[in-house]
Amino acid sequence: MLNERIELQECLELDARDPLQDFRSKFALAETGAIHFDANSMGAMPKEVPQRVAWMLNEGWRNLGRQGWAKLDWLDKPKMLGAGIAHLVGSEPEDLIVCDNTSINLYKLLSYAWGIRQSGHVLLTESKHFPTDIYIAEGWIKTLKEYGVDAEIKFADSHQQLLDSLNKDVAVVNVSYVDYRTSLRWDMANLMNKAKEVGALVVWDISHAAGAVKVDLMGNEADFAVGCGYKYLCGGPGAPAYLFIHPKHQNKKWPSIAGWMGHFDVFAFADRYQPNPRIISQTTGSPVIISNEIFAAAVDVWKKVSVEEMDSKHESLTSLFHHLILQECGSLGADMTSPATHTNAGGHVSIRHQGAGPVSEALLEHGVVSSFRKPDSIRFGISPLYHSHQDILNGVQRLRKVLSDEIWKEERFQKVSV
Amino acid sequence: MLNERIELQECLELDARDPLQDFRSKFALAETGAIHFDANSMGAMPKEVPQRVAWMLNEGWRNLGRQGWAKLDWLDKPKMLGAGIAHLVGSEPEDLIVCDNTSINLYKLLSYAWGIRQSGHVLLTESKHFPTDIYIAEGWIKTLKEYGVDAEIKFADSHQQLLDSLNKDVAVVNVSYVDYRTSLRWDMANLMNKAKEVGALVVWDISHAAGAVKVDLMGNEADFAVGCGYKYLCGGPGAPAYLFIHPKHQNKKWPSIAGWMGHFDVFAFADRYQPNPRIISQTTGSPVIISNEIFAAAVDVWKKVSVEEMDSKHESLTSLFHHLILQECGSLGADMTSPATHTNAGGHVSIRHQGAGPVSEALLEHGVVSSFRKPDSIRFGISPLYHSHQDILNGVQRLRKVLSDEIWKEERFQKVSV
Repeated sequence: MLNERIELQECLELDARDPLQDFRSKFALAETGAIHFDANSMGAMPKEVPQRVAWMLNEGWRNLGRQGWAKLDWLDKPKMLGAGIAHLVGSEPEDLIVCDNTSINLYKLLSYAWGIRQSGHVLLTESKHFPTDIYIAEGWIKTLKEYGVDAEIKFADSHQQLLDSLNKDVAVVNVSYVDYRTSLRWDMANLMNKAKEVGALVVWDISHAAGAVKVDLMGNEADFAVGCGYKYLCGGPGAPAYLFIHPKHQNKKWPSIAGWMGHFDVFAFADRYQPNPRIISQTTGSPVIISNEIFAAAVDVWKKVSVEEMDSKHESLTSLFHHLILQECGSLGADMTSPATHTNAGGHVSIRHQGAGPVSEALLEHGVVSSFRKPDSIRFGISPLYHSHQDILNGVQRLRKVLSDEIWKEERFQKVSV
Repeated sequence: MLNERIELQECLELDARDPLQDFRSKFALAETGAIHFDANSMGAMPKEVPQRVAWMLNEGWRNLGRQGWAKLDWLDKPKMLGAGIAHLVGSEPEDLIVCDNTSINLYKLLSYAWGIRQSGHVLLTESKHFPTDIYIAEGWIKTLKEYGVDAEIKFADSHQQLLDSLNKDVAVVNVSYVDYRTSLRWDMANLMNKAKEVGALVVWDISHAAGAVKVDLMGNEADFAVGCGYKYLCGGPGAPAYLFIHPKHQNKKWPSIAGWMGHFDVFAFADRYQPNPRIISQTTGSPVIISNEIFAAAVDVWKKVSVEEMDSKHESLTSLFHHLILQECGSLGADMTSPATHTNAGGHVSIRHQGAGPVSEALLEHGVVSSFRKPDSIRFGISPLYHSHQDILNGVQRLRKVLSDEIWKEERFQKVSV
């Protein structure tokens, strides 16, 4: 296929055969007409969101007030939302909940995993992990050390180096299933097998995969996972995050943050804490009612999505992207850096270009939203729900124009935003 | 005054002289016409909320997408919101931030306080504290013990017993400034003085006071405080909470949850954690954009409120309530249980009645929203911003009717919701 030229007609045919094509109409895409390839940063808004939020504000808040707790599903939302996206990541509905943010959920799970570890004193992570994952891990290990616990954080520079570092000293492993810069995806089965051999527990951050490519937590016997709601899952800016605990690890100890929403009987207002035996014990304070309602609009879309079709569509879109970059921009200094093989890559594709920052800025003016990461990377987050093959063609053609006409060198594109 | 009968005319005169009377028009009160005395549970919705949210959804999410981070004030909101309510609780603008929920913020501050404690191994708290405060404290102490740290939680049954329990063994004290059931308020200055004498640090939960009565954190040299945003502060259901750290305690150690939003340079994506020296280090993951925008509508109201006028108005409303309960319901089995003296009480008034649950249910049908707490307490959360003296009169008169006509004994009111 790499030798064949792909033109508009072929893209339109691919779109016509796309079993997920109708989902695009469920989203309110940007009124500017820009193609938002920022699904890796902020997924698009489901069309139902504004009316659902308006209803919840007026009926839930204004008119019901505190009665909303009894009359609406506010308390159940963390479970309902988790159940609604569980199939996307290979979890049973009851083993995933939506709450708090990714950093906090990671803190909960790292500390929980540490508490039930089999042996070892090392928290093994990746030097190229997403910053907050590293920071949270550093913070937890620092706390342990402050209280005299033998604990240490170690960093691996590559998948292979991490696998090579696995030994009986390793208590907990924390990795990004998909690298937020390169899109490199872990072989989850391989890491899980190797980790089990040495008795280490693995906490996965699946933020850059869920809602884009198939994740199979139960199939690979993953121990723990966290991820954010605002990327491919389209939960909105600042959406709550989610967390998964394999059923074999649930109810093994108290959650670190033993909040009332995780109590065995929330509205008993009991004198002492007793954790709920289920994963809901990892919820903390009051659910974020409005944010959960927003996420619910997205979850109602996701419930109808086949994860296999989602995965295939994403593969089709990203392989087209790879092909077109070579075809359209191959001689213009833009190289693909994300893996070409679908099973090795996550939700976004990324290219390297010497002027990545200004190129990304210039693309904005040409109706393409991408995102720049230092020093020379441009990422395009691809959604299998609302992007079409034609979008990919349009996006790459605009990139070609920005590069071939050297538009990115213009003065006004040299100030680069994050 | 207790011997004088108070009629409608006097209430109207009090309302006419109320310097805060115009603030009522800033809120969208319930369309049902019910008087919502649930400010202790969920404050009313500022009128601007729906349009601000609609704008943020369409312009911020839909049209800007990830560019919202650079073009809007999403990252600054935790500081801006904190600064906007700081005057209500006696904090400097830069020592208070809005983020996460009360349980999580309490966890952060209890663990932080423990880390910088002067001596002792006891976490001293109240047996009648709000449940999540107790649970979070239990959870933290349990974690410490699991790692071999000498730590213990102790409970006091009254203010006096807690004061009597203060000694060199006490490392950290955690109390409700205002009791969520009785409304009994601490003498903050007294506890702070006694705690300082033994070198204990105090974490205050001021949820049931902030936005209702004056709190003076700096004036009383409070060490730490947390509180929720959805009660008197009118931040909406599931609003983010806030936390305060006295400047002398800031930057003494890493936060327990070392998330990227608390990093010294958030978008540097640095390889290692370095805490921001300011209180913003206690933020964790992505700000809750939509929830923060909702809270911002309330904060824009609060910025114009004089805390002295707020406090006086609240005193006027609650003393009227006390007077009217005696006048209207004194012979009907309803006794005031919240303190009559303003400085001893918090945001709500509470009465005791043998049929408290059914009475609260019957009140709903008579256009009064209160809240029941087992076994025999009914609470009325009073907002100095949107309640009038006439509201108090109307509320108490409806209560009298429910009691005197024994309406609460009807079958349909026997099933009581939380």
